[in-house]
Amino acid sequence: MLVESRHFLHDAAPRALGHKALAVNLSDLAAMGAAPRWVLLALGLPSADAGWLEAFSAGFFALAERYGVELIGGDTTRAPLRTISIVALGEVPAGVALYRSGAKAGDDIWVSGELGGAALALRRPEIAAQVTELARRLHEPEPRVELGERLRGLAHAAIDLSDGLTGDLGHVLERSQVGALIDYELIPRPAALSAIGERELERDCVLSGGDDYELVFTAAPRRREALEALSGELGLALTRIGSIEAGEAKLVVRDAHGEPVPYRRSYDHFRERP
Amino acid sequence: MLVESRHFLHDAAPRALGHKALAVNLSDLAAMGAAPRWVLLALGLPSADAGWLEAFSAGFFALAERYGVELIGGDTTRAPLRTISIVALGEVPAGVALYRSGAKAGDDIWVSGELGGAALALRRPEIAAQVTELARRLHEPEPRVELGERLRGLAHAAIDLSDGLTGDLGHVLERSQVGALIDYELIPRPAALSAIGERELERDCVLSGGDDYELVFTAAPRRREALEALSGELGLALTRIGSIEAGEAKLVVRDAHGEPVPYRRSYDHFRERP
Repeated sequence: MLVESRHFLHDAAPRALGHKALAVNLSDLAAMGAAPRWVLLALGLPSADAGWLEAFSAGFFALAERYGVELIGGDTTRAPLRTISIVALGEVPAGVALYRSGAKAGDDIWVSGELGGAALALRRPEIAAQVTELARRLHEPEPRVELGERLRGLAHAAIDLSDGLTGDLGHVLERSQVGALIDYELIPRPAALSAIGERELERDCVLSGGDDYELVFTAAPRRREALEALSGELGLALTRIGSIEAGEAKLVVRDAHGEPVPYRRSYDHFRERP
Repeated sequence: MLVESRHFLHDAAPRALGHKALAVNLSDLAAMGAAPRWVLLALGLPSADAGWLEAFSAGFFALAERYGVELIGGDTTRAPLRTISIVALGEVPAGVALYRSGAKAGDDIWVSGELGGAALALRRPEIAAQVTELARRLHEPEPRVELGERLRGLAHAAIDLSDGLTGDLGHVLERSQVGALIDYELIPRPAALSAIGERELERDCVLSGGDDYELVFTAAPRRREALEALSGELGLALTRIGSIEAGEAKLVVRDAHGEPVPYRRSYDHFRERP
């Protein structure tokens, strides 16, 4: 459920919002290896604003059509603030769905694409205004639908990055009852982020920045070749950033010198944003 | 999507609200002849109010368990007003789902239960305070799940009464491209409603009052016996109130003298409540 003022601003571009509202749901399906099929959309609106609704629908349906997703139901009602509630349904063959609980000690940890771009665009809109790709990361993220489907049978566990790497990977560790060690320097990040030269901002965007909607997944080391081939085939970077360790559900991030890198975990929706 | 102040009051009893929020969705499934199976619940809340959430959940899960419905997903977020968005999923064998579009000229029109009780409870809370059954109709309606499933193969078209008989039956007529003739006096209504002796209030509650969540359906006259047997089996009144007529999608309600009874149709969510 996305609520105006909390998840998006009143003057957010409605086309991008229509895209993103669906994209974050397709991303959840991708993280389970599911092919998206159907979607239900409930909209609460303060008024019947035809222009807003048309632009919202254009963004929503452009993405839906791209993946053959059919709108099969929903609801429109009046609400004091624009409110968007979406359920996306998908299919995955029996036995090959990806779960948070599947990570195994010894697995490699992989991420798709680059991390931190959306968080940078949120915190430094003046940079996003110049780097289109950053603005798109935040406002029109690309759900990794093909990747999710192709990870069936290759990955052991997966999750999509909505709240940030450390928080989301933390869910995998808790469900799988394993630890993880990540090499901070290996995490791919946008060139524009490193170029700023603010180490703390960079670290926070890369490790704790939400909204990237990339996939983080774990796979046995014998899958490296297959995953590198898949990366080439999809034209999407897949990067090994660390490994799953036996033991308690703890995440250690280390720098190039082997020293631990401090990080904060993602936020509680009932506390204030950091 | 149910929004505080619009669909329920801030101080609405949370247990009844949890029940009703799910009930109205199960009612939609029943109207298609589907067996409810799974549900997704998105909640927007102004604060993490544990007492409210517990009572809401108690009402929600009591009904879910009664019909073997499993909560398989959802979301909780902060919203300025309590906001509830539910998707219920069900199953129906291929080819026997009931649609609004299936009504045929010559069909009988049937309703389950009694109409107008919820509208009366809404307009005359002092009466509902004395007649428990009326208050339950409004706040804890019973979705006609068993009836819906049993109407497979018997009924031609069905809809559940959320907005009122004339409005909801109007949808069936439009989709089926047929007319209808209803005998006002045949429509079953609570004794408490007739007892008030206000003819206009009674007419408005019976013909245009929403929230009853009974089913109105059409069936061939040769099904009368089967439907009467079903009524006995379920312990639920099923009453013939009129017939489907060839011709344009027009609904005529007539009184005992054959004179037309005036009525208003249900409301547009983007206009004010009548």
